[in-house]
Amino acid sequence: MRIGIVGLGLIGGSLGLDLRGLGHTVLGMSRKQETCRIAEKIGAVDQARPEPDILATCDLVFLCTPIGLLIPVAEAIQLHLNPAAILTDVGSVKASLVAPLSHIWPRFIGGHPMAGTAESGILAAQNNLFVNRPYVLTPTPETDPEIMPVVTEVVKSLQSILYVTSPAEHDQAVAWISHLPVMVSAALLGSPTNHESQPEILELAQALASSGFRDTSRVGGGNPELGRMMAEYNSIALLTSLKHYQQELTGLIELLETQNWSGLEAYLAQQAQARPAFVGEA
Amino acid sequence: MRIGIVGLGLIGGSLGLDLRGLGHTVLGMSRKQETCRIAEKIGAVDQARPEPDILATCDLVFLCTPIGLLIPVAEAIQLHLNPAAILTDVGSVKASLVAPLSHIWPRFIGGHPMAGTAESGILAAQNNLFVNRPYVLTPTPETDPEIMPVVTEVVKSLQSILYVTSPAEHDQAVAWISHLPVMVSAALLGSPTNHESQPEILELAQALASSGFRDTSRVGGGNPELGRMMAEYNSIALLTSLKHYQQELTGLIELLETQNWSGLEAYLAQQAQARPAFVGEA
Repeated sequence: MRIGIVGLGLIGGSLGLDLRGLGHTVLGMSRKQETCRIAEKIGAVDQARPEPDILATCDLVFLCTPIGLLIPVAEAIQLHLNPAAILTDVGSVKASLVAPLSHIWPRFIGGHPMAGTAESGILAAQNNLFVNRPYVLTPTPETDPEIMPVVTEVVKSLQSILYVTSPAEHDQAVAWISHLPVMVSAALLGSPTNHESQPEILELAQALASSGFRDTSRVGGGNPELGRMMAEYNSIALLTSLKHYQQELTGLIELLETQNWSGLEAYLAQQAQARPAFVGEA
Repeated sequence: MRIGIVGLGLIGGSLGLDLRGLGHTVLGMSRKQETCRIAEKIGAVDQARPEPDILATCDLVFLCTPIGLLIPVAEAIQLHLNPAAILTDVGSVKASLVAPLSHIWPRFIGGHPMAGTAESGILAAQNNLFVNRPYVLTPTPETDPEIMPVVTEVVKSLQSILYVTSPAEHDQAVAWISHLPVMVSAALLGSPTNHESQPEILELAQALASSGFRDTSRVGGGNPELGRMMAEYNSIALLTSLKHYQQELTGLIELLETQNWSGLEAYLAQQAQARPAFVGEA
């Protein structure tokens, strides 16, 4: 197949490495000439250019830009695509993207490969990034039935674990396990920082903080722009999660205020039991 | 010095190993004869017995039992101590313990070595557990001035980093960085578990959960009995922290509801800036 990749960062570059390894011809597009040059040099693409006409012969095109650029980039390339081409993306939210992207290009299907590293950019691209990692596809009732088999085969060839669900269900699931943790964790950092009125207690807290605080605060101290984007593009599901979370917290506060220690222990025991199903130890 | 250790688990056993290595005579007490035998065998004590009379000749006694046993154990041993003996504990909360323990034994000073491993019990005891770890001492205005220099020297000989503060300040600091994270993290597990009404979304969330959810949920999925104890013995400081945390969360929900994305990004940027001071990267 001739496969296009728009946006040559960690995800786009890693896709290119694997897809070329599988025998496909990979054509890349990046705004920066220098990125195109590096992508060619490391073998992530056969050829890359900043101009969208490079995509003209592609059967399948992956949009791999940051979430905020997906719609404008789709607008910019659509006149250059083969009418039979299938378009897909790798954005971490789906409902708010699938609708406009399907409108721009009806042969579109939303996708979300859940893989990554702490690094970003084309130089972080690596082979086998998607092996044994989830890859969610989100067809809708309007998705052309020809599309799923093509994209499914490519996803499976990456050795990803395929999940198929609706955009809305995807978004609620990732709100629970990816976007809610960022907010919960950020608020943990904000609490002593914004509310501790005694500087000596804040300093002592900072000095005494150890692995528990380090782990619980990690995702809340991450890239603010990414956090904002996930909230902006998944605000409905995230708000639902946040309000349920607030109810849990109110319940915990009530257990403490009523000194219901056996109730608190039972609550904590329920969570200790619930965790293995989420962290692959069930 | 002749040093007594009551409660021969990870902390008591590790203290014994180090203190014997420093040339002190260490006398241990544990309810279980078998634990006494193991402690002797691994060299954590010179001698150990279940009976409190073994403490009669000690100059300094460490109470290393679980928090819930500290007061009854102090009651049980006090008749057997040398009137000049100094008593200290290793409990992770202070105000609710320092007052009753000082009442039982006026020559008491609260302590909290912040070290540990995932293991527990005498077989987990190890040398140098306290090296470069915080060790908080919490004297009060009533603490006999003779006591601090003696305990300070022992703490420093363990190569711990000594902090001296009041019981209440200690408790508020550990509420922020140790006890609040447990509650925040448990509520993260409880939210999808108790509120997701669609089982297929819950299952998808469990399947897609990755390192972010793993880290943020770790301390909330820990030992429920320990979580209950820290809440029970530090309920006032923990409630203060939880209520401030709830305000942070309400603020985040408002940012999302008003679609104040630049405000959200600024909030997340503030937390990314705050975190290094807590995790030793400042």
